[in-house]
Amino acid sequence: MRMSEGVEWAVHCCLNLAWTGAEHAVSAARLAAYYELPSAYLNKQLQALARDGIVASTPGPRGGFRLARAPESITLLDVVTAIEGPRPAFRCAEIRRRGPGADPADETRCAVDQAMGQADLAWRRELAGRTLGDVMAGVERTAPAVPERVHRWFTT
Amino acid sequence: MRMSEGVEWAVHCCLNLAWTGAEHAVSAARLAAYYELPSAYLNKQLQALARDGIVASTPGPRGGFRLARAPESITLLDVVTAIEGPRPAFRCAEIRRRGPGADPADETRCAVDQAMGQADLAWRRELAGRTLGDVMAGVERTAPAVPERVHRWFTT
Repeated sequence: MRMSEGVEWAVHCCLNLAWTGAEHAVSAARLAAYYELPSAYLNKQLQALARDGIVASTPGPRGGFRLARAPESITLLDVVTAIEGPRPAFRCAEIRRRGPGADPADETRCAVDQAMGQADLAWRRELAGRTLGDVMAGVERTAPAVPERVHRWFTT
Repeated sequence: MRMSEGVEWAVHCCLNLAWTGAEHAVSAARLAAYYELPSAYLNKQLQALARDGIVASTPGPRGGFRLARAPESITLLDVVTAIEGPRPAFRCAEIRRRGPGADPADETRCAVDQAMGQADLAWRRELAGRTLGDVMAGVERTAPAVPERVHRWFTT
């Protein structure tokens, strides 16, 4: 089980857009260049973020991406869901309803699915409790030069 | 991001081995037949469980698999780890260390990786807090006919 590398890209690009400021639109190519990422593939992640209202895109030669909302109102779960989709990692195929042990009258929820679902909820709760604003504050505390460096690079 | 279907198979097979009882060895083919699963592919999951000491296998025509430990001492995390491996779903590729913004002197842990790691821990904590014994108790409460049905099918 592995999350797409696009999640790391998407979170870092959102942080960079936040530090750049909503008054500047940044192209996918420029966002990609900052980490030497493949621009076309990053553009797909940015489109997914736009579909979920996390970034806003402006077309045209001077267009690009901006953060669509305040970073304090975008959670890590929002970003992960935009890239990975909303479905849980464990998907019960209800194998207990096949074969000689199957009981058509049994309407209970599978106990395995239930336990896996609770672990998934704990994971989501943690990601939903962490906003991009929180992550930015963490970076500003441990690597205080980063926000200014990002802002300068993306605005000049 | 999707967990392998082998996790569902492995958990259900462990439950069935527990209800069958450690005095009976059950072949992969018979375990597979109970849910109409492909026997060769299920055998791979059973080998992974055996490598991690969750089931014990006895070779030979009368051999097969048994649960290696009491179901109360096997957690869902043990089973998931045996099938999926121990690595977290989010794997930080440290893209922040590439490109024009990279700072070779920065020795901090990436704030994104840290936040994703905490969500992963919450997920693991939940799975580590649930044993096969707990799941069995859940089934016994909601579908009390299952344990006896399983025991009968696998021992006759």
